[in-house]
Amino acid sequence: MGAVRETLDAVRLVDHHCHGTVAADLGRDAFESLLTEGEAWPGISPFDSPAGVAVRRHCAPLLDLPRHTPAEEYLARRSELGRREVQRRFLRAAGTDVFCVDTGYAPDPLTTPREIAEAAGGTSYEVVRLEGVAESVQTAGVEPDAYADTFRTAALEAVRRPGVVAVKSVAAYRTGFDLDPARPSEVEVTEAARRWFARGGRLDDPVLVRHLLWTAVDLGLPLQLHTGFGDSDIRLHRADPARLTDWLHLTAGTIPVLLLHCWPYQRQAAYLAAVFERVYLDVGLTLHHVGPARAGGVLAEALEITPFRKLLYSSDAYGVAEFFHLGALAFRQGLAELLQGRVDADELSLPDALRIARWTGRDNALRVYRLEADGPEDD
Amino acid sequence: MGAVRETLDAVRLVDHHCHGTVAADLGRDAFESLLTEGEAWPGISPFDSPAGVAVRRHCAPLLDLPRHTPAEEYLARRSELGRREVQRRFLRAAGTDVFCVDTGYAPDPLTTPREIAEAAGGTSYEVVRLEGVAESVQTAGVEPDAYADTFRTAALEAVRRPGVVAVKSVAAYRTGFDLDPARPSEVEVTEAARRWFARGGRLDDPVLVRHLLWTAVDLGLPLQLHTGFGDSDIRLHRADPARLTDWLHLTAGTIPVLLLHCWPYQRQAAYLAAVFERVYLDVGLTLHHVGPARAGGVLAEALEITPFRKLLYSSDAYGVAEFFHLGALAFRQGLAELLQGRVDADELSLPDALRIARWTGRDNALRVYRLEADGPEDD
Amino acid sequence: MGAVRETLDAVRLVDHHCHGTVAADLGRDAFESLLTEGEAWPGISPFDSPAGVAVRRHCAPLLDLPRHTPAEEYLARRSELGRREVQRRFLRAAGTDVFCVDTGYAPDPLTTPREIAEAAGGTSYEVVRLEGVAESVQTAGVEPDAYADTFRTAALEAVRRPGVVAVKSVAAYRTGFDLDPARPSEVEVTEAARRWFARGGRLDDPVLVRHLLWTAVDLGLPLQLHTGFGDSDIRLHRADPARLTDWLHLTAGTIPVLLLHCWPYQRQAAYLAAVFERVYLDVGLTLHHVGPARAGGVLAEALEITPFRKLLYSSDAYGVAEFFHLGALAFRQGLAELLQGRVDADELSLPDALRIARWTGRDNALRVYRLEADGPEDD
Repeated sequence: MGAVRETLDAVRLVDHHCHGTVAADLGRDAFESLLTEGEAWPGISPFDSPAGVAVRRHCAPLLDLPRHTPAEEYLARRSELGRREVQRRFLRAAGTDVFCVDTGYAPDPLTTPREIAEAAGGTSYEVVRLEGVAESVQTAGVEPDAYADTFRTAALEAVRRPGVVAVKSVAAYRTGFDLDPARPSEVEVTEAARRWFARGGRLDDPVLVRHLLWTAVDLGLPLQLHTGFGDSDIRLHRADPARLTDWLHLTAGTIPVLLLHCWPYQRQAAYLAAVFERVYLDVGLTLHHVGPARAGGVLAEALEITPFRKLLYSSDAYGVAEFFHLGALAFRQGLAELLQGRVDADELSLPDALRIARWTGRDNALRVYRLEADGPEDD
Repeated sequence: MGAVRETLDAVRLVDHHCHGTVAADLGRDAFESLLTEGEAWPGISPFDSPAGVAVRRHCAPLLDLPRHTPAEEYLARRSELGRREVQRRFLRAAGTDVFCVDTGYAPDPLTTPREIAEAAGGTSYEVVRLEGVAESVQTAGVEPDAYADTFRTAALEAVRRPGVVAVKSVAAYRTGFDLDPARPSEVEVTEAARRWFARGGRLDDPVLVRHLLWTAVDLGLPLQLHTGFGDSDIRLHRADPARLTDWLHLTAGTIPVLLLHCWPYQRQAAYLAAVFERVYLDVGLTLHHVGPARAGGVLAEALEITPFRKLLYSSDAYGVAEFFHLGALAFRQGLAELLQGRVDADELSLPDALRIARWTGRDNALRVYRLEADGPEDD
Repeated sequence: MGAVRETLDAVRLVDHHCHGTVAADLGRDAFESLLTEGEAWPGISPFDSPAGVAVRRHCAPLLDLPRHTPAEEYLARRSELGRREVQRRFLRAAGTDVFCVDTGYAPDPLTTPREIAEAAGGTSYEVVRLEGVAESVQTAGVEPDAYADTFRTAALEAVRRPGVVAVKSVAAYRTGFDLDPARPSEVEVTEAARRWFARGGRLDDPVLVRHLLWTAVDLGLPLQLHTGFGDSDIRLHRADPARLTDWLHLTAGTIPVLLLHCWPYQRQAAYLAAVFERVYLDVGLTLHHVGPARAGGVLAEALEITPFRKLLYSSDAYGVAEFFHLGALAFRQGLAELLQGRVDADELSLPDALRIARWTGRDNALRVYRLEADGPEDD
């Protein structure tokens, strides 16, 4: 093992974007459906995918099983140990001590940020999903012309809670990024709120999505943006972050914008990070889906032109604790492969490689979110 | 040679999408123009391309010539042997025993599916190109308000012929995928047919292309869709399969959809295959154009997140028999390189690698098309 | 070192697209801001990027410093030597003897083509940026209905100057490529000119940008087109060269079109080069930004299907002389890695590899621009 990998193994990662795990013991169907961004399908097991292979290879040993354990045995052992022990093992193995947890997506009951942190022996912070705040405002009932103020107040309250360090938007899912970049007028927002309240359902009005993004600017906290792939609800080509360029120009010099996931647009994201001061990226979610075998290839593209202060680590783990471990492992393995290869070819000095390893695994996130590594004030 | 390559060499491939070869002896110009998706150009030989280099390297030995034989000598020997012998040699070398032949594109007189199968010592099935059916209906003459029924009846007749296992559409060429995804109304179809009949020419009306895709759903057979690159008639960005997402949502749970070629959108295709139950992909056509030297790189992207039940093999050979051999070789070499590399790095178990090799080379296609490996009933 | 690298090191490159260097000694801020396509940002040094690492690794030794010299010492030594000596060293090291210099972008006072050539011991030609010509016409004052003729006459005068071998357009920056491909009518141009003259500012009217591209066709010289990434002024997705396909069809058989930079759309550019006779590409700018460590990966994509007569070399160096050296080094190192790997795997014969090396490094450009290697007539 090279020096870069040793350093990366020793770095306590900051996972700047993740979710809780399902707070229930999982049967085969439930586990499999969490293993994929698709559905579980008749006759095709989600274990027969790069992520499934990676679980059997890299997660089985942590459950005292041999590498490449068959899915049945893996699931049986997982049940035997129980979800708390399983979670503890994977979170300890992740070598992560800071978690920024998006608490706004919970089709299932999930472990809390505090539970994640405790299982990992680390610290957690919270990320507020703005669509959730807006939808709560709508559900609570408000006149259309009061929507903008009420949403803003609710968002301010949400982010002022202790431990909140960022907001997140899933505009990519709701409208994609082909939005008018300008801040909508009060009249436009009221009119759009009227339409939304009459129609109901989730927030997907283009005016209100724009308004949400601009509200994020007003809040002043870093904004995490889903970009690139996800489940079938996304329209992939509309989630290309390059389509945000006009908005990034209008909001330049305000809040940090963190492009999440990005695949297959990691190069487009890298371009934005290279030309806009406050734009950052990660390849979270991607890393555990492609697995450690391919993480180096994806990271090589993500880092082609990205300034080394601009790449962050996230797992985007959701639902199963395995992804905290796999994401961290794929990141460490892929980045070490890339950096060590350049050191060996004398394209990069070892001290530079180690600095890049520490920056991307930890320091960049501490810097962007102004985190104290020992946790939020009230903890 | 590793165990994966040995297994892949032994797998009798199913080539789920190919064409016939030109049923005539070819002079240099004719051969060269079939070697490229462009035209043959003054002063630039299509042999001076990745595909041309691959032909001289990998096809020459099958004509009893040394590797890297110059183009002139290659063509002379090819003429000397005659097209039947050349075809026999390349088709035997392809190690393919099932061919699904698209019979709807024939600017030149082509060998029939039966001739392909006989030369290979295998079995052939037929794929019906729906644009061809629609254009026959138009040519035969029908009132606009009878177009929908007549087309549907003609398509049903075409697919009920023995040996037909799938339909194909080249919507990518005609309109691209930025189509209204909804099924058009009868009135819309009649109106569009009226416009088309008045204007003449090939089918490229957006309403009728949508109607064609929905007719495919009604037929119930797997639908092969050209996506990504091809000749200069394509508008590449409009052939990005991600643009089909709305239509894939509306038709979810109906027919299997097979995304052909895909390059350079293999990751977008992989995303669709990962989230939609009935979406599959291949990198046919791409493989022989990039050649065995680069097939591994393209397959690595195509398989980044693709479930292993979702990748199929096709050559998309057209015109020259060399492409049956080159496609098969590039697939075996590229996939073996990828899988063996993962086995060697202990990222994948050998039994898993062999299973993935057999699935992608053969079993996935047998499963999707419900093929009997010993041929159509009437053969 | 393999035979391919030796040949490439011996090939005197033709740099078919570059700029001058800033004709002043540069302080740290000025140097750093030229090192990146972004701005120099508080707390983030542009040296902490792939390009910065490459400068410290590959340029420091030419200033008599050790590899991986820290930025401070690099800049101190650079100042000590003075810009003329620095320029001389990097230009000599570039092994380039023909430069086609775009003289139309000069926010800073730049060295002239002649100065570049003299420092390199080579020859220079000039590339006329058409937007600059059009803007001079507007600045000089002309009636809207005389704009088309005046622009055309000015462009003709500009290209008839000795040493001019090509024109360039930055349409990618001004409107992107989603343009109506047709030649605009005189009435449309006059109307658009009227709007532009009233509004002022740079040329970014879609009608006038189209008109500019069609004027390039009339001029008859090769047209260089910025495509893909650049500074934050670009909208990356609109700079995808695939969006030019309709225009390439309408102008087929007229002038050579050279797609510059291309990243991350090098595959889209390769497709166009593979299907249109007169389309060529390079990955200039990209090469020094990704650095020699990653140049091979980018070139592998650029060459996946590109005919070997269609790839050219350019540095797209601007501002600092380091980029002439880095671009040339990354090209030689990346291409040698790719070609030698194929020779070693017996996928390519050595004579073919050497021919491809000479073509792409030199001969293709001489051919497209009909250059005499010993300079323009009046030199």
